[in-house]
Parts: sequence; structure tokens; C-alpha cells
Amino acid sequence: MYDGIVQELIDEFGRLPGIGPKSAQRITFHILQTPTFDVARLAELLSEIRTRVRFCEICGNVAEQDRCAICRDPRRNPALICVVEDAKDVAAIERTREFRGLYHVLGGAISPIAGIGPDDLRIAQLMSRLADGTVQEVILATNPNLEGEATASYLSRLLTTMQITVSRLASGLPVGGDLEYADEVTLGRAFEGRRVL
Amino acid sequence: MYDGIVQELIDEFGRLPGIGPKSAQRITFHILQTPTFDVARLAELLSEIRTRVRFCEICGNVAEQDRCAICRDPRRNPALICVVEDAKDVAAIERTREFRGLYHVLGGAISPIAGIGPDDLRIAQLMSRLADGTVQEVILATNPNLEGEATASYLSRLLTTMQITVSRLASGLPVGGDLEYADEVTLGRAFEGRRVL
Repeated sequence: MYDGIVQELIDEFGRLPGIGPKSAQRITFHILQTPTFDVARLAELLSEIRTRVRFCEICGNVAEQDRCAICRDPRRNPALICVVEDAKDVAAIERTREFRGLYHVLGGAISPIAGIGPDDLRIAQLMSRLADGTVQEVILATNPNLEGEATASYLSRLLTTMQITVSRLASGLPVGGDLEYADEVTLGRAFEGRRVL
Repeated sequence: MYDGIVQELIDEFGRLPGIGPKSAQRITFHILQTPTFDVARLAELLSEIRTRVRFCEICGNVAEQDRCAICRDPRRNPALICVVEDAKDVAAIERTREFRGLYHVLGGAISPIAGIGPDDLRIAQLMSRLADGTVQEVILATNPNLEGEATASYLSRLLTTMQITVSRLASGLPVGGDLEYADEVTLGRAFEGRRVL
């Protein structure tokens, strides 16, 4: 629709997740028409991101060095490992400021439909981290959906032989939510997991 | 929240219109984790866009040469000029394939609140295009909102002294829409502009 590079940039933005053709057009024109937007900076970051970012050799989190900022932090408790599917989950848990242990990023979840088995995840790396006896508890924080549950139960079976406490994040009603609008499964889990006051 | 460049890229994407912090994070991780996404291509387009794209010296549309593809096209009718606020409006009208004349991009609309007056728009350029008598009709296609209407009535007063037909795009019910859900102003316009069948 547009001349050359304008349309090419719209198309390229349209390939990113959550950006439709209309948004891609709006972004492109914003870049063109807003002199204060630092397009050179965005271009530079994009050209560097893949080379500068690697994944932590210990936990698999994003890092700019061999080890991520969390694995390098001596104040974190090495006896506690929280297992997550994705590096984005690490950031979400860090925002709660509730957890002071270390992480292990699996790089996905077991999904027969998507053809992802245990060997495609960073499970062997997790087992070798547990081998020296430092870790006392593994918190399984995979997503509360089909794939995440399957992954958690696979890992929990794998860990039964070891002298390690295995726990799973609680399922239940979201805080600030409305009981009336909770789905049956979530409400059922909230009953199952009810606490005596 | 993240180490260095990952957070910097998230922040930079978050500065674009319509991209919140969550989307910015999703896009950044998509770029990091999808080997098939051509990040170098996006970086290259971004670093070139501002230098390669200029605005057509005649109509103000986006162009990669001194004149845009529409102004260069000898098959377009030079007696007809459609006045729009923005280059994005040109693309929207081109998609209809209804209009075969030329355009004039004002670069905005009159808005006392935003401090945009007639002198901030490409109105002088429009007047000089009309000076040689080639143009027979000017279609005012500014947006059907307060600013667009003010701009259209300003231009229409300016053009009354000239031997040129001045028209305005019809307002009314959107095609495929539902009368029940139309706002009063639109429904009122639809009555005003009713056609005898």
C-alpha cells in the first residue's frame, strides 16, 4: 500500500507477537513523525540483543554474562530452587519479592501435542544441580494448565527418590477476584486447598 | 527487572504507541527466543527509515523520492484533490479504490486546544496548488470529529472565492453497522443526509 521501506517496516513490525497490521502502521508512522523518538537507539539495541544476551549456564535465565544476576547474588538461598517454564516467569516471581532462593528455567513444558518431551527441557541440568545435596526444597512453579501440570507431576515423580522436599504453588481464587466469576476448576481447587483459620 | 539490554529493549518498545510493558516484554522475548525472526532486518529498516523516507513536495504524502507514487502517476486525475489530515488517511482511501484523483496532506487539523492553527498546516501549499486553475473539485476528507469539522469549514470558507467545487465526505451510518447502536450525532447526520430512492 505504501512506497517501499514504509511498507517493509510495517510488515516487519506486523511479524511481532500481538501487533496487527493497524498497530504496525501506527508504530511506523509514530517513528516517522515523532522527532523525539530515538529510532537509532532502538535499531542499535535490536542489532545487539542477540549477541549480547545469552542464557545463564546454571539456571537458564536471561543473562549478559555466563551466569545471571540472580545466580551471581551471594544473598540468595542456594537451598531453595524454584522451577519455572520460562525466563519471563522468573521476572514475574521476582516482582512479588516473596522468593529469595534460586531458579531453574526449563525452557517450556511437556506437551505431546506440540511434540515437546522431557528431553527437550532443561531437566538433566536440574538433576545435576540437585546432585551435591545443597538443595533442600524444589518449588514447582510451572503454569497451572495442562502442560504445566503434566510437567510438574513428571518432575515430582522423578524427585521422589531424592531427599528433597518437592512443593507446588497453590491454586485457588485470584486475590481481588470475584467468586461468582471463578471457573469451576479454580473454585474446586480453592475448596481442596482451603486452610483452617 | 531484567539484566541490562533486555530491560533496555523492553523499555524502548514500551515507548511505541499501543505497546504496554507486558507486550514490550513479550515482543523482546519473542525476538530473543525465535531464531527465525529476522532481527537484523528490523534493525536495518529502523536505522534507514528516517533517512530514506521524505514527504512528497507536492502533496505531503510519504515518499522515497521528491514526489510520491501517486503524484508521479500520470493516470491520476489532476482536476480532483482530496484533502486529508494525515498520510495514513491516504492509504485508507487508496484501499477503497474509489478515488482516482490526487491528494493533499495537511499534516493535522485545526485544534485550539492543542495549539494548532491554520498556519501550522499545509494550507498555503494547497492554495498554491489551486492557483493555476487545473483543479476543479476539492474533496474535504478531514476526520468527522470536532477538529476535522473545524478544519473543513475553515477551508471551505477560504475556497468560496475560487471557481472550485468544494465537497465533504458523507457522514452517516457505517455499512454493516446496527442502527440501534449508532450514536445520536451519527444517526442525526444519517437523517440529514438521507437520499431519495
